[in-house]
This record gives sequence, C-alpha cells and structure tokens, in this order.
Amino acid sequence: MRALWLEDQKLRLRDDVPRPVPPAGEALVKVQLAGVCNTDLELVRGYYPYSGVPGHEFVGVVEEAPDAPQWRGRRVVGEINAVCSDCPTCRAGRPTHCERRTVLGIVKRDGVFATHLTLPVANLHAVPENMPDEVAVFTEPTAAAREIQEQVTVGPGDRVVVVGPGKLGHLVARTLATSGCDLLVVGRSRRPLELLSSAGIRTGTADGTAERQADLVVECTGHPEGFELARRAVRPRGTIVLKSTYHGRLSLDMAPLVVDEITLVGSRCGPFAPALELLSSGAVDPRPLIDARYPLSEALAAFEHAARPGTLKILVDC
Amino acid sequence: MRALWLEDQKLRLRDDVPRPVPPAGEALVKVQLAGVCNTDLELVRGYYPYSGVPGHEFVGVVEEAPDAPQWRGRRVVGEINAVCSDCPTCRAGRPTHCERRTVLGIVKRDGVFATHLTLPVANLHAVPENMPDEVAVFTEPTAAAREIQEQVTVGPGDRVVVVGPGKLGHLVARTLATSGCDLLVVGRSRRPLELLSSAGIRTGTADGTAERQADLVVECTGHPEGFELARRAVRPRGTIVLKSTYHGRLSLDMAPLVVDEITLVGSRCGPFAPALELLSSGAVDPRPLIDARYPLSEALAAFEHAARPGTLKILVDC
Repeated sequence: MRALWLEDQKLRLRDDVPRPVPPAGEALVKVQLAGVCNTDLELVRGYYPYSGVPGHEFVGVVEEAPDAPQWRGRRVVGEINAVCSDCPTCRAGRPTHCERRTVLGIVKRDGVFATHLTLPVANLHAVPENMPDEVAVFTEPTAAAREIQEQVTVGPGDRVVVVGPGKLGHLVARTLATSGCDLLVVGRSRRPLELLSSAGIRTGTADGTAERQADLVVECTGHPEGFELARRAVRPRGTIVLKSTYHGRLSLDMAPLVVDEITLVGSRCGPFAPALELLSSGAVDPRPLIDARYPLSEALAAFEHAARPGTLKILVDC
Repeated sequence: MRALWLEDQKLRLRDDVPRPVPPAGEALVKVQLAGVCNTDLELVRGYYPYSGVPGHEFVGVVEEAPDAPQWRGRRVVGEINAVCSDCPTCRAGRPTHCERRTVLGIVKRDGVFATHLTLPVANLHAVPENMPDEVAVFTEPTAAAREIQEQVTVGPGDRVVVVGPGKLGHLVARTLATSGCDLLVVGRSRRPLELLSSAGIRTGTADGTAERQADLVVECTGHPEGFELARRAVRPRGTIVLKSTYHGRLSLDMAPLVVDEITLVGSRCGPFAPALELLSSGAVDPRPLIDARYPLSEALAAFEHAARPGTLKILVDC
C-alpha cells in the first residue's frame, strides 16, 4: 500500500508498505482523512524514537473486522492507545498508560498516513452520520483537549487562561468555553486569536494578562516562555495544566511553586465519547483551523507546510 | 530584650532589641522553646531577603492580650501567617496565601528566637495541658506535614514513598502513616531511617525503590536528585508533592511528566488543629528528632549545630 514512512528522522513516500492484516480483535480500516499533529513533527525531528508510518489523527471506514463483523462498513475514529487490558495499570483503570501499550503512529504501531491501518475494535468509535470527515478527523485532538476537564474541575466563574492559541490551544479553549468558565486565551499571533474572537472567546496578549489571578492556566505552547507566563498568571493554590510536550529540559524556579502551593498537571490523551459529542453538537467547530488539504501522494509537502510557523491544521486525504 | 538578629546574612545575638508592643488584635507571647527549621538556615544563607529576628517554630505563654484577656497566661503555639482577612485571597478561603501577609520570622515580622514575640490572637492555639513543650514546639512543622493530606487524598493501600528522612520528612512520614497507606521512606543516612524503622515505618534506599509504582511521592530533600528519584518512583497519573523549598533553578525534563500525566503539588504551611491532635494523641512523637537544646544565649551555636550535615532538630530555650 501507499504510506508515508519515517526512518532515521527521514520521511519518504513508499508504495511498497505491506497492507496490514488485522490480528485477533483488530479491524482493518481504510483511512479517509488524516491530520498532522505537532507530535508528528516532533517524531520527524527525532524528539522520540520511532520508525514506521507516522500519524494518529484520522477518520476512516472499517474494511475488515473478522472478530466483529458488525463494524464492517462503518465510518470510525479510533483511540490511539492499543492496550493489554491485563497489566496492573490497565486493571487499575488507567488503560491509556498501559505498560505494554502500542500507540498509533507513535509507539510500535503503524499510523494513519497510509491507505490502511489496523486498530483494536475496542478502540473504534462510530462517527455520527451528520458529521463531515473534516470535523471527525479532529476527534483525537478534541479528546486530548477534553482530557483537562477529566483531570481538573472547571466550572462557571472559574478564571481560566489558555496560553498558546495554536491548533491544540484552540481546541482546548473551545472545549473549556463549554464549562462556562471566565476564559482568556493569550498569544502572540493575530490570526489564531482572531479565530477565537470570532467564536466569542476573549483573547489577549501576555502583557495584558493579570498576574496571580487565574484559578487554572493551560499551557499549550511547549515553550519555556509559555510556562513562565503560566506561572505568572496563576494564583496561589491554582493549577497549571501542561497540555503540550516539551522537548529538552525546562529550567524551573521551584521555590515559588512550593511557596504558592501551585499544582502542575501533565495532560495527554483524552476520552473520545465526549469529544464526539462536542463536535457533533457544534459546541466545538474545528473547521476554521484547516489551513490546507493534500492528497496522500503529496504527504511530504503536507508535512513541510505543517512545519511552517503559524500554520494551523493540515489534513491529508488518504 | 535578648534576641537573635539577622541582617545582611549575618546572625548576631542582641540584648537591645525593643520588646514588641502588641498592636490591636495581637498578643505578646513569652517564648519558652523554639525550633530551628531549614528555612531559618536558608534565610541566613540569603536564599530569601529578611532582616530581623528569625524563627517561626515555638511554644510560649501569653503575657498580654489587651483585646482578648482570656488568653493571658495560656500556653500557646501560633500559626505563622499574619493575614489581613480582607483581600480577595483571604476572602476566597486561602488566608495562608494572603497578599498582604507577614510571616513570623520570614516576611516582615520578627520571629521566635527572642524572649518575646507578638502574633494576632487569631493565630494562637492553646496547647493541651498534658503536652510537654518539647512536643508542642513541633506543632508548626507537623502542621506543614499534615498539609499534604489537605491537598491530596491518601488512604489505606495507597502506595506512598517519602524521599528524604530529615526532620520534615520524618514528620511527613509519621503523619502519612496515620492514613493506613502502604508507606516507604527512602534516604541515604542511616540514623534517621533507623528512627523511622523503630516507629514501625518501612525504610529503604533509592536503589531498592520500585520504579513507576507509587501513587504518591513526597519529595522532602529539596535537591534535584531527590526530585529525580521521586520522578522515577511515581506511577503514571500519580502525584509528586514538593514539600521542601528548592534554592536555585531545577532543570526538569517535562515531556515525561506530560506523557505520564503526573501531577506536581507544591506544599507549604498546614493546619494547626489536626497537628495538635496528632501530637497530643501520640500518633506522631517528634521527640526522637531532638539532637540538642541550647539556651538563647547560645543561639548562635545552636544555628551552627543545626547547619551540620545529618543534624535533625535543634531546640532553643528562650
């Protein structure tokens, strides 16, 4: 099959990747549309070791599901952690942290920039009929955004600051807005802030952000300056959620975190069911984030585009 | 009055410090016994700017309380944050983070290494009659240890690791042990580990600590190696409580904190009432920590002793 292939930090398009055969409990999915995530770009930069087909954001159609034929022909999205359901971590109810997990396009499992992929049937979620592919493809990052509300209580009146209005920060802001919180999104680039403004979300700049006032700050930049801003904005006993991966080491002055009793929460993958609801109801409309769509044959150009500063979401028709 | 005096990172004993006159709402307390805390040593090292009488751990007797004469003659301990009760932070129920607070022997308020101090009457807690001074003087650090259980839920069966069995780590371990959790205290020095063993608490070394197993790790060393050990010991979605102040910047690899969805919680001052109960019931007996007692006239020697590696608690009779 045709697939994008990452090896030794080099991407190339291959036409000779064997089409995967679903093992027991898994389905073969024809990928329709896939999204480029910052994590994909980081894999290419070598921040994590990975060889194989990259990508984890997709919508597709089940072609084969030998153990669960009722899934055949259904349009699906899929959770990216394939887990053992048997290790202590799975049994403790934390399957996304399974000690033996593979992760679609990230850890030991070929990903979505290909004509086909396999995933456990247990990972699949049917896409509502009325939802276009270009919305459904955002289910995974919307779930990651929604994860914050699984970890931290956010409600009406809570003062919340989102630092970084990039493609993930945008979805974080849109999902948090549904809580009724007092929301402010802070960033440097005008265009993503304008997108949020036109969705009715208050935006501002670092200089204009009140210090020591926010109950919750969500850091979506992955840069030390973003963390410093989060640190300044949060109130004593407030919470900073780290929603972005950081490459390299971050140098922190920990003493103020102790004196102010700040809580830092790392946040990764989230639940698909509420994400699908948010997208289906229109509470979160991700389409303004789409900057371009490429065919799989131009997936290399899609990655180049996605890596350009200021780019929001790049999609690939597979 | 006689008092220890810190100025320009130099300690000296003075006999000419004016005895404080309690302002409205405050009491004059004759200090009986005071404890040297690591924070005091850090003030001397200049990690925080402070001039005046240092020290915040004490037990004493109220000599004057013009607005609350019923306190006169009572033996007391005192919460160290003197707060305004009026700022948004106080009104939000976080008085220990009051924006206008002074802190006994730490921020703009003379401390305990003196014959007398003043504190708001609202800060005072009566000491149970049966409690010796050398137990009551541990109320403040025991409250700081107890704070962890105000911030994080700890219960029977939870796997908890305390890193650093120093004087604060010891109290942290003793307070956590009352929760019925599955507790392990890890350290390098034999003597403090033996003290904990003889109190029935399991102890071990860094090498022998299981990786990625602990639900909760409490870091009490304030050193980067302690943090690294905490990081290795905590399980995915587990919690690390930072119970010690860090001087200088700590260089952290944040990516694993995000991937493993770790929560970091800064922890400072705690509630006196449950601390007094723990000390009164004997659930926490701090007396094995006492390494020496000095008179106020030898407070400089007391500080020198407290700064020697391996020293646990040094008390000063004031």
